[in-house]
Amino acid sequence: MKKHQNALNYAREHHQDFLNQLIDLLAIESVSTDPNRKSSILAAAAWLAQKLSSFGMDVVTTYPTPLHPVVYASKIVNASLPTVLVYGHYDVQPEDPVHLWQSHPYQAQIRDGKLYARGAADMKGQIMAGLAAIESILAVDELPVNLKFIYEGEEEIGSPSIKQFMENHREELKADIVLNLDAGMIAADIPTITYALRGLAYFELTVTGPATDLHSGIFGGIIHNPAQVLCEIIAGMKDEYNRITLPGFYDDVLPLTQLDKDELARMPQTEEILLKQTGAPALRGESGFTLMEQNSARPTLDINGLYSGFTGEGAKTVIPSWAMAKFSMRTVPNQRPERIEAQVKQYLQEKMPNTVTWKLKTFTGGFPSYCDPENPASKAMAAAMAEVWNTTPVLKREGASIPIVNEMQEILGLDSVLSGFALPDDNMHAPNEKLDISIWEKGIESILIFLYNLASNQ
Amino acid sequence: MKKHQNALNYAREHHQDFLNQLIDLLAIESVSTDPNRKSSILAAAAWLAQKLSSFGMDVVTTYPTPLHPVVYASKIVNASLPTVLVYGHYDVQPEDPVHLWQSHPYQAQIRDGKLYARGAADMKGQIMAGLAAIESILAVDELPVNLKFIYEGEEEIGSPSIKQFMENHREELKADIVLNLDAGMIAADIPTITYALRGLAYFELTVTGPATDLHSGIFGGIIHNPAQVLCEIIAGMKDEYNRITLPGFYDDVLPLTQLDKDELARMPQTEEILLKQTGAPALRGESGFTLMEQNSARPTLDINGLYSGFTGEGAKTVIPSWAMAKFSMRTVPNQRPERIEAQVKQYLQEKMPNTVTWKLKTFTGGFPSYCDPENPASKAMAAAMAEVWNTTPVLKREGASIPIVNEMQEILGLDSVLSGFALPDDNMHAPNEKLDISIWEKGIESILIFLYNLASNQ
Repeated sequence: MKKHQNALNYAREHHQDFLNQLIDLLAIESVSTDPNRKSSILAAAAWLAQKLSSFGMDVVTTYPTPLHPVVYASKIVNASLPTVLVYGHYDVQPEDPVHLWQSHPYQAQIRDGKLYARGAADMKGQIMAGLAAIESILAVDELPVNLKFIYEGEEEIGSPSIKQFMENHREELKADIVLNLDAGMIAADIPTITYALRGLAYFELTVTGPATDLHSGIFGGIIHNPAQVLCEIIAGMKDEYNRITLPGFYDDVLPLTQLDKDELARMPQTEEILLKQTGAPALRGESGFTLMEQNSARPTLDINGLYSGFTGEGAKTVIPSWAMAKFSMRTVPNQRPERIEAQVKQYLQEKMPNTVTWKLKTFTGGFPSYCDPENPASKAMAAAMAEVWNTTPVLKREGASIPIVNEMQEILGLDSVLSGFALPDDNMHAPNEKLDISIWEKGIESILIFLYNLASNQ
Repeated sequence: MKKHQNALNYAREHHQDFLNQLIDLLAIESVSTDPNRKSSILAAAAWLAQKLSSFGMDVVTTYPTPLHPVVYASKIVNASLPTVLVYGHYDVQPEDPVHLWQSHPYQAQIRDGKLYARGAADMKGQIMAGLAAIESILAVDELPVNLKFIYEGEEEIGSPSIKQFMENHREELKADIVLNLDAGMIAADIPTITYALRGLAYFELTVTGPATDLHSGIFGGIIHNPAQVLCEIIAGMKDEYNRITLPGFYDDVLPLTQLDKDELARMPQTEEILLKQTGAPALRGESGFTLMEQNSARPTLDINGLYSGFTGEGAKTVIPSWAMAKFSMRTVPNQRPERIEAQVKQYLQEKMPNTVTWKLKTFTGGFPSYCDPENPASKAMAAAMAEVWNTTPVLKREGASIPIVNEMQEILGLDSVLSGFALPDDNMHAPNEKLDISIWEKGIESILIFLYNLASNQ
């Protein structure tokens, strides 16, 4: 008999109980952006603290922050065992537009094997999967690992307090690995571990020519139109191969490994699927890379906004005084936002004509992250998922950003096992958010086995 | 004694009377864009019809149009004499913002030798200068030329009716030359005849990529960003010499004549003055041409507006679904708007990548015009002005557009002597519009002598 069999049996017998607990948690309207729901935020934090206390943790503390509290807990069974830091966020997105919900967003309803409620997938369902796995182990066994928990209430509003919190509590947060279930699966039959994320660098460039808008008849021909200048500057940021021309932009980019390429090649997205998803007439990316490499593992530059002059109905013959572009890069390991900023400034200094002045505004960026998918913790999760799903999980490089993963590397020195059991069509951040209950049950089992695997890998 | 001396003496003796007549006309609030002032529009037309009737015209007719009436009159003294068609518009711009006026916009006030009122310069003062000259001649002499008049009431709203009116009244409008006093002087001591005007071609280009805005993390790297595409398309419309790259764009451009170059070289604007006027850090135009050639006599392309994606405060990581640019060309003889449109379409068809779709909207353009400054009528005006100002007038190519000049060439086969006595600082279209009375008196004399000169040139 496997070491985890008793706990697994317990989990299977108590699914309904865990589901009821989740429904309880989902009833708390912990919308972090809504000042009128501060009491619900506090109630959700209290619910988690109460739950963790019931596990007999050594410490359960609800720490205030400048905004919403962080729930912390720890249980050291044996200093020689690996320590897992479980990360989660108990806040949710607003339910708007509420009239599009088929059932009450906070009174969870089961339809056709899915549980519908705000936060079901993102990420109270994921939190509860972890708690259910741990409760099942505790009911029949000793904990096979040491456990720490950090639950924040601000993830949906950009986590303004968590960095400072981690810096202030480095000692309490010491661990060997983070378990972060805030990523999802690429499909219901494809368990997924996300081992790399892109970062972000975001800029706003304003180019100013004449002091005011000018009459294009009277001054047209002697003024270097600032909208024209802006377009030329932007056009020059990419070459014919769709590579980014900023000086040194690729210097810090780690080349793709064979594992990166192999895993990206396993992704089920095809050109046909991506064309259908985006509605674009044709796709185009950096020459020499596959579509999945382009949108997950290679750095990009996108124009996010353009504005100049007259944009209303009809015709106005104006030479605009200024023109503005917002643009941003999705970065990859080991690119750093401050290096990107320096490259942008160097490019602008070299290319901008003397007919205009310019101003560059830099927004807060984020670092990319990379957690070796061949480290023991990742392998422990992969083996657990393979046992539950009876298929090898996909190792995913994600094109979007989850800043906490890099921040935990930078501040705590901890890699994350980043996974989760939400599906692409679970309507996260949208009406009728849902959780596939059978997938969620597999998720509970995966976490449970992962914790045992971690210990035996020691 | 000169043939025109008696009339000139009469004009000088009756200046106060003419000024009072102008003040009368200025009191009529003939704002063409304001539906509540329809009765004032009609009153201004009636005032002119009454005035022309008092001259003993053969015909004075107020023609209705779909909007505001056209006042027409004619007096054929002798079929062998040249016939001058006097053009003018009796409508004015709105007086807004009214609180910035130092005196009532329709109760003309004289301060420091200037007459302040809406329409004083643009162009009731110019209309009255012509009528004063003719009244002076009629008081002491026979008319030296045949006269026709066409006064419209829609110039300030784009003259929607005048083309059709001219097409419907070709026979009545037969003449040898048009006198149009709706242009101005470049300075108080520099009488000015404007012999060429630029035309206009105006477009709105929309480039669409994905069907909706997309998340730049998830799709960044495989989507050809439509704002990037738009910038590349715009950047490609100019070469390193600031020449326009549309296929065949310069094919129809008449080369500058020696007279063009000589007269443009006489213009008092310097780089220093233009830098101060525009506030631009530096000027830039088409290589190989002087500043005045660039902004008056060479065709141009300006971006008038840009819009795409997110333009609010802060950062939004979006790949825009579409991007839009408004752009327009100031054209020169013999460029034609429909040929420019074909060139734009050809350029777009050749350059636009298959990753986007595009739509080009063409706005109503205007033709450039060129009236030979060495024709007898222009010389007659130049000689008249030289006599009055005691200096050779400047012959000006104007960078902006006055569509009626070309329309009269196209429809009636008539060149215009385009001049006027408004000054650059007369606040046309702005609060505190004014007319310099001493310049206006010189204007009356110039018109009077012009009419005599025309006859003697025969």
